Amino acid sequence: MKRTSRDIRTANRYEVLRQIIAASPTSRQELAAATGLSLATVATLVGELLDLSMITEVGFEDSAGGRPRGLVAVNASGGALIGVDIAETYVHVELFDLGLNVLARAEEDVRPGESLPEQVIGHVAAVVGQVVAQAGIEGARVLGVGVSVPGQVDRDTGFCEYAPNWDWHDVPLLDLLTEHIAYPLYLDNPLRASAVAELWFGAARGRGNAVVVNLGTGVGAGLVLGGGLHRGVSNSAGEWGHTTIVLDGRVCRCGKHGCVEAYVGASGIMLNLRELSPGSPLLHQDDQTATIAALAEGLRQNDPVALGTLRDTVRYLGAGIANLVNLFNPEVIVLSSWVAAALGEPLVEEVREAVARHALPRPMAATEIVLSPIPTDPVCLGAATFALEGALQSVGQKSPKRSITPARAKTPNPR
Amino acid sequence: MKRTSRDIRTANRYEVLRQIIAASPTSRQELAAATGLSLATVATLVGELLDLSMITEVGFEDSAGGRPRGLVAVNASGGALIGVDIAETYVHVELFDLGLNVLARAEEDVRPGESLPEQVIGHVAAVVGQVVAQAGIEGARVLGVGVSVPGQVDRDTGFCEYAPNWDWHDVPLLDLLTEHIAYPLYLDNPLRASAVAELWFGAARGRGNAVVVNLGTGVGAGLVLGGGLHRGVSNSAGEWGHTTIVLDGRVCRCGKHGCVEAYVGASGIMLNLRELSPGSPLLHQDDQTATIAALAEGLRQNDPVALGTLRDTVRYLGAGIANLVNLFNPEVIVLSSWVAAALGEPLVEEVREAVARHALPRPMAATEIVLSPIPTDPVCLGAATFALEGALQSVGQKSPKRSITPARAKTPNPR
Repeated sequence: MKRTSRDIRTANRYEVLRQIIAASPTSRQELAAATGLSLATVATLVGELLDLSMITEVGFEDSAGGRPRGLVAVNASGGALIGVDIAETYVHVELFDLGLNVLARAEEDVRPGESLPEQVIGHVAAVVGQVVAQAGIEGARVLGVGVSVPGQVDRDTGFCEYAPNWDWHDVPLLDLLTEHIAYPLYLDNPLRASAVAELWFGAARGRGNAVVVNLGTGVGAGLVLGGGLHRGVSNSAGEWGHTTIVLDGRVCRCGKHGCVEAYVGASGIMLNLRELSPGSPLLHQDDQTATIAALAEGLRQNDPVALGTLRDTVRYLGAGIANLVNLFNPEVIVLSSWVAAALGEPLVEEVREAVARHALPRPMAATEIVLSPIPTDPVCLGAATFALEGALQSVGQKSPKRSITPARAKTPNPR
Repeated sequence: MKRTSRDIRTANRYEVLRQIIAASPTSRQELAAATGLSLATVATLVGELLDLSMITEVGFEDSAGGRPRGLVAVNASGGALIGVDIAETYVHVELFDLGLNVLARAEEDVRPGESLPEQVIGHVAAVVGQVVAQAGIEGARVLGVGVSVPGQVDRDTGFCEYAPNWDWHDVPLLDLLTEHIAYPLYLDNPLRASAVAELWFGAARGRGNAVVVNLGTGVGAGLVLGGGLHRGVSNSAGEWGHTTIVLDGRVCRCGKHGCVEAYVGASGIMLNLRELSPGSPLLHQDDQTATIAALAEGLRQNDPVALGTLRDTVRYLGAGIANLVNLFNPEVIVLSSWVAAALGEPLVEEVREAVARHALPRPMAATEIVLSPIPTDPVCLGAATFALEGALQSVGQKSPKRSITPARAKTPNPR
């Protein structure tokens, strides 16, 4: 509960590296000015990052006649990070350098029916192998692999307690992954992955309070509160998709009624479309991706059914996001994930109007609503960021916290 | 956004004083064990609190043959704190010693129609004068006055931006209060006051994540996240009462439809009762307090209309609290304020069942739902705690942050 000086130090280390990644090359003086930390603290943290080979000295700049200032920059080739986005319909993997540039990406589809943990993990192992081979790097340079799983994850035990789409219950995911992947592993879910991506590299940078609204097959909210991720007491905060917005309303796949997700998740949007126009050519039976793509194209062409479906969806989505504005009073609401990316600006415009109709004036006045500015898959980037945070957290510790000892051989006792 | 070492020091000072208030007398060694802070840090903070006369040395205890340990205790008479609970229908004031024992209390009714800021402030000034006189203390000993206002408050400017029940907009409340009250003033709203009371003295003590659900005329949630109060970017977080739970539902006094408050605020409960049994003798027209008291008595006697009204109310309340469980994943939900206190255990039992039906299993398993254990008015206690925090925050500063220079004379330019 109490923050220790070790936590502060870790948070400050994140902050300095974040700043260097954002603006390389830079001087210790500029870093002190940008972060509000003392020059002495910055110098210590920069020293640690140099020792880790995460950053490097890149010369000097003149300081108006004074002593020349040493410049540092990200040492992009000092290591590699892998982010894995396990989604309901695909496994997407990206490999990043330390500047968080994508060096390689790969994807495999998860077909309906392929829902056993072993099948999904087979895809993960395959695509992780592909990106390492594509990037042509040595395995030793991979600092860690972040894995986002669409469900509720216990980071301490490595179990996936529940994944609604595949009906997984208490799957020992970390043990199973460790059988195939030799790098330190960091498990979490897409809500937190996309939130940490926005916090480090996107619309929540430098913002103390932000809510990242994930609109995909599942929906939920990643919470940035007081400058850090809010996980809740058992790492399951942010289940906005399963908050009630229409008491006794539409059945949700979680088994309850009237959840936000039942109206604004990809399946919910398909149902909104079907209710509006049952025979619409926009509707691709059992194919969420194709239907959302058709809707997006329809919006570009001012198709009335596409516009009507958007409005019907935003009637729920606007009220649901207004609830987040009223509860959290954030500086920014970021719309993320594939449905938000596909529907784009027309969605954001409708959402802004609808939220303003529902939210209280005071918190509304303080909140900006934007699309995620992250140009790549935010969940992969966030998962890779968890691996980066893990590497930074382990500075000065014997073994990295929450990471798993690399093991190429099978673990003797997978639970 | 970043926590500085000054913030940490202030938080640790709170923590040490909180512990001393909870268990006086105590030793530095016990404080170090209870707080997790180093003995050196505890010794420094204890020294500061001794300098402030907030605590006092009270002798020694044997330490099993070792050197005797110095004991400290709260210096209850070292100062006084005043908490003011401005509610829609009354102004209640309590004066506390530094052990947070109530030395005096006073109350005046705010009658319907008496809604001008000057009228309400007249009541506040009168009752503050009464408690100081009752307690028989010198004015110089009053360290501060915390004032809770039922609306949206800007703590920096001292304006009440909006108070729905009185239709106040942008009232310069702090300036107006300063004309009548000579002590340092701390303004906030009842959501945050009751949350800070639970954090210091109630069910959120030692809990990193807690939601304090206020059930009164207005309803809302005080948020304890990561061990501290979550205020949001413009101090208006926690407006749970105005989150939508029935899209296009009952009209709320905020002007929107289907808000939680419209169903579970005192007026909402009266409407639930009227819809169930229009001529019920439990219903006291235009008198919320009498109606809720009659309902509570009806519950004690298993009156079917009282039970039916409770169930109808909890149908909404359970879903609304489940939303908080799913979003925040807290350790505890505390039911506070006068409606919760009046309906008591029958309410809590129904709520527990209803929340379990709506919330996801993982966050639900981590959450306890309890009635506020605070035996006095939690809003007064919380408001007084803001004054105590203000006094602690000012250690080592020239002038206390967020407090107002005492001024008995009229301020020249009240805005």
